[in-house]
Amino acid sequence: MTYSYATHASCPKCKTTYSIEEIQQLCSCGSPLLIKYDLHKLKKNWDRDKLGSRTNSLWRYHELLPIKEEKNIVTQGEGMTPLLHLEKLGERLDLSHLYMKDEGIIPTGSFKARGAAVGISKAKELGIQKLAMPTNGNAGAAWAMYATKAGIETTIVMPLDAPLVTRKESVFAGADVILVNGLISDAGKIVKNLVEEKGYYDASTLKEPYRIEGKKTMGLELLEQLNWQTPDVILYPTGGGVGLIGIYKALQELYELGWIEGSMPRLVAVQAEGCSPIVKAWQENKMESTFWEDSKTNAFGINVPKAIGDFLVLEAIYESNGCAISVSEENIQSLQREIATLEGAFICPEGAATFVAAKKLREEGWIGGDEKVICLNTGLGIKYADLISEEPLTILEPSEH
Amino acid sequence: MTYSYATHASCPKCKTTYSIEEIQQLCSCGSPLLIKYDLHKLKKNWDRDKLGSRTNSLWRYHELLPIKEEKNIVTQGEGMTPLLHLEKLGERLDLSHLYMKDEGIIPTGSFKARGAAVGISKAKELGIQKLAMPTNGNAGAAWAMYATKAGIETTIVMPLDAPLVTRKESVFAGADVILVNGLISDAGKIVKNLVEEKGYYDASTLKEPYRIEGKKTMGLELLEQLNWQTPDVILYPTGGGVGLIGIYKALQELYELGWIEGSMPRLVAVQAEGCSPIVKAWQENKMESTFWEDSKTNAFGINVPKAIGDFLVLEAIYESNGCAISVSEENIQSLQREIATLEGAFICPEGAATFVAAKKLREEGWIGGDEKVICLNTGLGIKYADLISEEPLTILEPSEH
Repeated sequence: MTYSYATHASCPKCKTTYSIEEIQQLCSCGSPLLIKYDLHKLKKNWDRDKLGSRTNSLWRYHELLPIKEEKNIVTQGEGMTPLLHLEKLGERLDLSHLYMKDEGIIPTGSFKARGAAVGISKAKELGIQKLAMPTNGNAGAAWAMYATKAGIETTIVMPLDAPLVTRKESVFAGADVILVNGLISDAGKIVKNLVEEKGYYDASTLKEPYRIEGKKTMGLELLEQLNWQTPDVILYPTGGGVGLIGIYKALQELYELGWIEGSMPRLVAVQAEGCSPIVKAWQENKMESTFWEDSKTNAFGINVPKAIGDFLVLEAIYESNGCAISVSEENIQSLQREIATLEGAFICPEGAATFVAAKKLREEGWIGGDEKVICLNTGLGIKYADLISEEPLTILEPSEH
Repeated sequence: MTYSYATHASCPKCKTTYSIEEIQQLCSCGSPLLIKYDLHKLKKNWDRDKLGSRTNSLWRYHELLPIKEEKNIVTQGEGMTPLLHLEKLGERLDLSHLYMKDEGIIPTGSFKARGAAVGISKAKELGIQKLAMPTNGNAGAAWAMYATKAGIETTIVMPLDAPLVTRKESVFAGADVILVNGLISDAGKIVKNLVEEKGYYDASTLKEPYRIEGKKTMGLELLEQLNWQTPDVILYPTGGGVGLIGIYKALQELYELGWIEGSMPRLVAVQAEGCSPIVKAWQENKMESTFWEDSKTNAFGINVPKAIGDFLVLEAIYESNGCAISVSEENIQSLQREIATLEGAFICPEGAATFVAAKKLREEGWIGGDEKVICLNTGLGIKYADLISEEPLTILEPSEH
């Protein structure tokens, strides 16, 4: 039995192909690489209806993942996160089919675990010893945890403002942590130097081609959970954009396998007003974004002033007839509270942003009231508990009751 | 189709029975009540091999849960948490079959979500409007979140020292939060008064009979994940002890259904040296514990000086040929770090305590090196991040690289 149907890596820009038996980073033309599969052969050998009996993690889709041998898998049981119908919030937003895919219910409490699980497993398969990466926090925490399990040393570079708990997670996993008094783009420059000087594997977003394969499983799961019926709209909080690119890739592969029919869902990139380079590019009908100066948002995971995969995000939006939209800090914060009190879910600000966007797009008529709408909550609210007040409280002595 | 095979509530002490169509709290004799099922009928109508195609949450076992109508279910997708073989830690502890059931990968990041999901669903079914409960933090956070989804008002009473994030979660869900400068036993007294004065539903541990049914699903899942083969030893961090009682109840029901064979696993109650009333009672061969004065531990969830269900915990230990053991704060802390660096898992101190106990019991020969050993990690380490250092760190300016 073939464990993985991955065949090679391919450049979406210049079409050069690369072997996946060796370490690959960017294409020589500077573009990220994408992994290709023998879908024709897979279609003959794999039956979607047999998935039910498989392991309850993203590894149930191992044929569509790039790890050649099962023994190299580094897992914490990640994947198969809940898909929840939010009836009360949906009623308030006039969306009768509003769903949340809750990526907080995963090891390390963030969807970053998917990219880390697949990326680290492949790094292990390739014999990587040391890696470095920039992060806004959650990716670093996830990669540090999975890497230490795999016996790989890591250097994590993150902004001083990244959520404190992600810094602690990375340190606790035994990673070398470097804080930079700046943005993820500054962290990226430090990693670039480390990679050049010390020969570390560069695990930066899209500079290795496997993280996206892990993120892709969000799309595979979502469609399996929807019984292979495509939804109408998928909203994704977009920083580096790998999740959106991954979901788009999943949909394309599922169409090719003949597992899904119906229209491609409209993909929506959601950004914060304080950092919305993809929204600006989309509004101007451009194929690439420009660096967003002085970016700022409490939805820290989407504070990415210029994404290396911006052109892939924009392609996914254009090709799916989707859109890009920015939302305010104030609306993110109030939606985060609204979903807690209505639905009992403590989601992260990035996740809350997608619901704000759904609300706006419904009000504008871009989304119909009966359409099936999926919002991705990318992580646990408790990782951002510093942003939340603990008032009002009553404090009593044991005698006072 | 019968959704639930629950028939009635029964007192394990005086054997009085009660209807589950009405609100029940303690038995008139003061004992907690346990829910009974028509296992004879269920055995005829339900096939364990058909579970695979069911929903990926604890509701896959709805026949063995007390909710009569599916429409009353309040869910965040809880359950089916990972069961992980810890090879590296196992090698270090000379345990070749060491497993962790990771209850951090669940809504609210703690196994308390199971009790809350089932307890709140039943409260909704019974028409409860307002409830109150004492908590060491995580249970309160979970019940506040599920209650608000169900439209039930809650008052949560917790010690001032409970993890800050659980206080924030409860407030964020819209609960009334009362802090007491004391222990959970002091919080319990405040709740008792609120219940008597205001007529609230008392959701204190074992004072309503449904929370334990939710916890029971840990045992059901564990056995399903082990392909219905009983393990040798199950270690559980024991405060109120409901998890242990629940797992024991699950095992008994599965034996009666004929779904499992082989010996009953030896159940181990793990406590902290600073609060080990169950260990003391077990060492003295008693059937009940006595109040532990001046209890103190960083494993906050197991800081319970006297559990109302202590006699049920002790019965489960005696009947399963298990034991009770206490572990030191220092060992908990170092094991917590060890499992992070070896296995990439950031578990809570309560969970770490079970691995310390497994190590000690292996050293003493009470556990054999080839036995199948299951440790329950009851929650996310990040909920206790205040206990974790962020050192060592390097801080750079963007220019310094």
